[in-house]
Amino acid sequence: MAEPSRKYPTALGASTPDTITLLGHDLARDVMGEVGFGELAFWLATQQRPTKGQVRVFEAVLAALADHGFTPTAIVTRLTYLSAPDSIQGALAAGLLGGGSRFLGVTEDTGNFLHDVLASADELPADPDDTAGWDALALATVRRQRAAGRFVPGLGHHVHKDGDPRTPRLMRIAREEGWFGPHLQLFAAIGRVHPQVLGKTLPLNGAGVCGAALADLGLPLPLLRGFALLARTAGLIGQLAEELRRPVANEIFLSVDRNSRSLPPEPWKPES
Amino acid sequence: MAEPSRKYPTALGASTPDTITLLGHDLARDVMGEVGFGELAFWLATQQRPTKGQVRVFEAVLAALADHGFTPTAIVTRLTYLSAPDSIQGALAAGLLGGGSRFLGVTEDTGNFLHDVLASADELPADPDDTAGWDALALATVRRQRAAGRFVPGLGHHVHKDGDPRTPRLMRIAREEGWFGPHLQLFAAIGRVHPQVLGKTLPLNGAGVCGAALADLGLPLPLLRGFALLARTAGLIGQLAEELRRPVANEIFLSVDRNSRSLPPEPWKPES
Amino acid sequence: MAEPSRKYPTALGASTPDTITLLGHDLARDVMGEVGFGELAFWLATQQRPTKGQVRVFEAVLAALADHGFTPTAIVTRLTYLSAPDSIQGALAAGLLGGGSRFLGVTEDTGNFLHDVLASADELPADPDDTAGWDALALATVRRQRAAGRFVPGLGHHVHKDGDPRTPRLMRIAREEGWFGPHLQLFAAIGRVHPQVLGKTLPLNGAGVCGAALADLGLPLPLLRGFALLARTAGLIGQLAEELRRPVANEIFLSVDRNSRSLPPEPWKPES
Amino acid sequence: MAEPSRKYPTALGASTPDTITLLGHDLARDVMGEVGFGELAFWLATQQRPTKGQVRVFEAVLAALADHGFTPTAIVTRLTYLSAPDSIQGALAAGLLGGGSRFLGVTEDTGNFLHDVLASADELPADPDDTAGWDALALATVRRQRAAGRFVPGLGHHVHKDGDPRTPRLMRIAREEGWFGPHLQLFAAIGRVHPQVLGKTLPLNGAGVCGAALADLGLPLPLLRGFALLARTAGLIGQLAEELRRPVANEIFLSVDRNSRSLPPEPWKPES
Repeated sequence: MAEPSRKYPTALGASTPDTITLLGHDLARDVMGEVGFGELAFWLATQQRPTKGQVRVFEAVLAALADHGFTPTAIVTRLTYLSAPDSIQGALAAGLLGGGSRFLGVTEDTGNFLHDVLASADELPADPDDTAGWDALALATVRRQRAAGRFVPGLGHHVHKDGDPRTPRLMRIAREEGWFGPHLQLFAAIGRVHPQVLGKTLPLNGAGVCGAALADLGLPLPLLRGFALLARTAGLIGQLAEELRRPVANEIFLSVDRNSRSLPPEPWKPES
Repeated sequence: MAEPSRKYPTALGASTPDTITLLGHDLARDVMGEVGFGELAFWLATQQRPTKGQVRVFEAVLAALADHGFTPTAIVTRLTYLSAPDSIQGALAAGLLGGGSRFLGVTEDTGNFLHDVLASADELPADPDDTAGWDALALATVRRQRAAGRFVPGLGHHVHKDGDPRTPRLMRIAREEGWFGPHLQLFAAIGRVHPQVLGKTLPLNGAGVCGAALADLGLPLPLLRGFALLARTAGLIGQLAEELRRPVANEIFLSVDRNSRSLPPEPWKPES
Repeated sequence: MAEPSRKYPTALGASTPDTITLLGHDLARDVMGEVGFGELAFWLATQQRPTKGQVRVFEAVLAALADHGFTPTAIVTRLTYLSAPDSIQGALAAGLLGGGSRFLGVTEDTGNFLHDVLASADELPADPDDTAGWDALALATVRRQRAAGRFVPGLGHHVHKDGDPRTPRLMRIAREEGWFGPHLQLFAAIGRVHPQVLGKTLPLNGAGVCGAALADLGLPLPLLRGFALLARTAGLIGQLAEELRRPVANEIFLSVDRNSRSLPPEPWKPES
Repeated sequence: MAEPSRKYPTALGASTPDTITLLGHDLARDVMGEVGFGELAFWLATQQRPTKGQVRVFEAVLAALADHGFTPTAIVTRLTYLSAPDSIQGALAAGLLGGGSRFLGVTEDTGNFLHDVLASADELPADPDDTAGWDALALATVRRQRAAGRFVPGLGHHVHKDGDPRTPRLMRIAREEGWFGPHLQLFAAIGRVHPQVLGKTLPLNGAGVCGAALADLGLPLPLLRGFALLARTAGLIGQLAEELRRPVANEIFLSVDRNSRSLPPEPWKPES
């Protein structure tokens, strides 16, 4: 099928007049009706079909991240739809553009942080359930961050101060499915040991544990944010569907407008 | 839970310091690990949990639309990632912005067209499998479109001229699951009768049959394009994952650049 | 310079190791320092250098559309920046995505509507200042719209009910510069005659008169929305610059969040 | 005009039924027809009306960055328009999303780098034209970057290897207008001294000198990328206007499609 002279290789979708393949499989016969959507998203990202256990953990992550009510991304999608109802793609794209460092970034930051610690550790506990071994690594990690004046990504939550209910749940699901790997081990250990360094107990963030789980599943680390965005796309469609029936965007706009007040211009002072 | 004075109602995500709910359910306990991602996306859009049969048809649609290789949307996502690798959300959003009338629009157009025909028909076949009844409605429909000089959305495909393999497959899945409703009936009938009006046989487009199936599933018609975009988000993550390993975007850019040539400006002539 | 075998022609930017040209001119020598930004935008769109009069009218239009305070597009840009401060391009793009049919569409709709009326008129007043002639065409136009149950684009404004101050000002500028052409003539006539048909006096919308003026300037009609978006890009940068110093986005988000209330899910009822 | 209880202050656009103000001025009377578009964009960003000299330098920068032919951003805008011709805002937004670290980032990176060097220098030359003083600072700067294994932003260009024609031109314009400030001084000095450190002569990048000039003009450093995006918006409208008349997007798409080849999937290997 491959012609070496053709310069753009892909293992994703391909078609001829008679066939459509996806990931090397016949799309109609082997994928449609046979492969769930979470499973397919995982497969597309890794080019390897996930096991049932991987799919369950992955879909639990997507559920955890799909919608958090009136977040900035949800408000943005609704306001954009109000302004440009002819372009559903624009409303969804605008919402996703808020998926950056601050609101959706915890997932990515946590996964990458844990990965870097693991990759640079001299050795990891030989027995994956060697709690003391993980605790020692976690302790060194939290201490190093504190000494450098840096936060530990995924530690703390501005609402769920006494514990994010998603965290223990996702850890249990990962254990049940046999995908409680080194990233989750280290993250759990950070949860156990950080009070002795920081002098207070912080919750393990639910978006952070999602990053740890995605990393344990073997998904591409540079794209962790992408999975949060995939989950959020489903949530934003839900926001639009609700906006169609119980519109709030115009009232949001008007309440901002009503509460605005004019100030005289204030010249920008360049930093010196 | 509701306070009447609060003006922005939602049944989607909500949280208190101790709880997170989604669609009225405890997110951690009842959704994570229990609900697949396709199922969740359906539920978010309709606020009603779908049956297993609905989920299977829905996920078959998403599989059919997830990725079609180097489409404009895929090329756009890769080129945007090349230009701005620091912003995954920008690369995905840029790709989705191509999900408009021409490339992803068939799904939406077909679903809405079939719905309008059904809604304005004097009566529909009482027996859902009354083939002759559906054929009569389809015949009148194709004739009316032809008389008005308009195409029938979803009829024809620029590559799969002798038949889009997704179409019979999705119809069979819908039958198996008991969701072969009036939109699919009418679309199938259009496939049977159009040659007698048009004098040639056109394939039923796979993206079109997806629109018919989504409409039969009871999903919001104004958001049909949104489901195509959800599917495509998974596909675009796959494109980015492949671009990380087998980059082609720079070569695409260079091949355009190398093949460009300068022309003298040509003044715009306003239409008269 | 042109090689016929190269398949992507352009008269816009081009470079060799030693030169950079834009629109056939030496960029550094002939454009930088010589051509204003409004002038350049006009030139890029039409491939013909505008006169000073055209530039003045064009820049007056851009000024009229640049910023209207806390519109949905401005709120969206600020909220997106709050969420993803690492991506200025994402914040601007998200704001522009609200530039659709409802909020920025009047400019485009009015320009195109007037153009269509002019293009299908049997004859236009020979003397451009034949007020009675323009009034007759306007009267027929308003009557035809009313008979069809359609609005006249650009007629009416939800805030400036007794007159949009931008409208007479832009008309005067266009007259001063000799660019008060048939689109503005017809629009002004609609302003004079519509009360006899509609039984009430509506203001001529300032965004609408911008569309008429852009059409008279000979700019591409399919891109009228684009000029509104260009103006708005400058406005959105202003919004971001103000957000840096007097941030409001977080308070907007919190005020929506505080005013949200949970409702039980309500199943979507498919239209019948 | 201000009511202290209103919580969203702004000095930008505001309107009442009778008036529209922008930056504290009557929009119709004092801005439209009086203020050029580059001038207005500068004013919106700084809330201070620029001088004629500032405007000329600023508009020269915008001209330098408006369009560079078939860049990834231009290709993306054209392909998105091909896919979704109903949404001009989507095509422009998609193009802008490529305005990230790699293609438009030089402007921002250079401006910020120079600013940081100036802000942390013990002292700056008292006489702004003390070439020896600037050279000493530049030499220390280039040495420090080289010792740290880091590039100097704005040094080098992949096409204009013997000199970017925009650089001397912009420097001359800035001198003519009296806005050749410390950022440009330092950048010019880097151009003079770097060969003694690096052992080869690199050109000063035209996009980089733009960043230096914008910083000298006193524009907000966190938004330097925004001005490149403003310039590019005008360029992308030019690209769309040309695409309307000499379409190339479909041929670009087809040439990618024709040159694609299917490969077997290759499982992602998580980094260790």
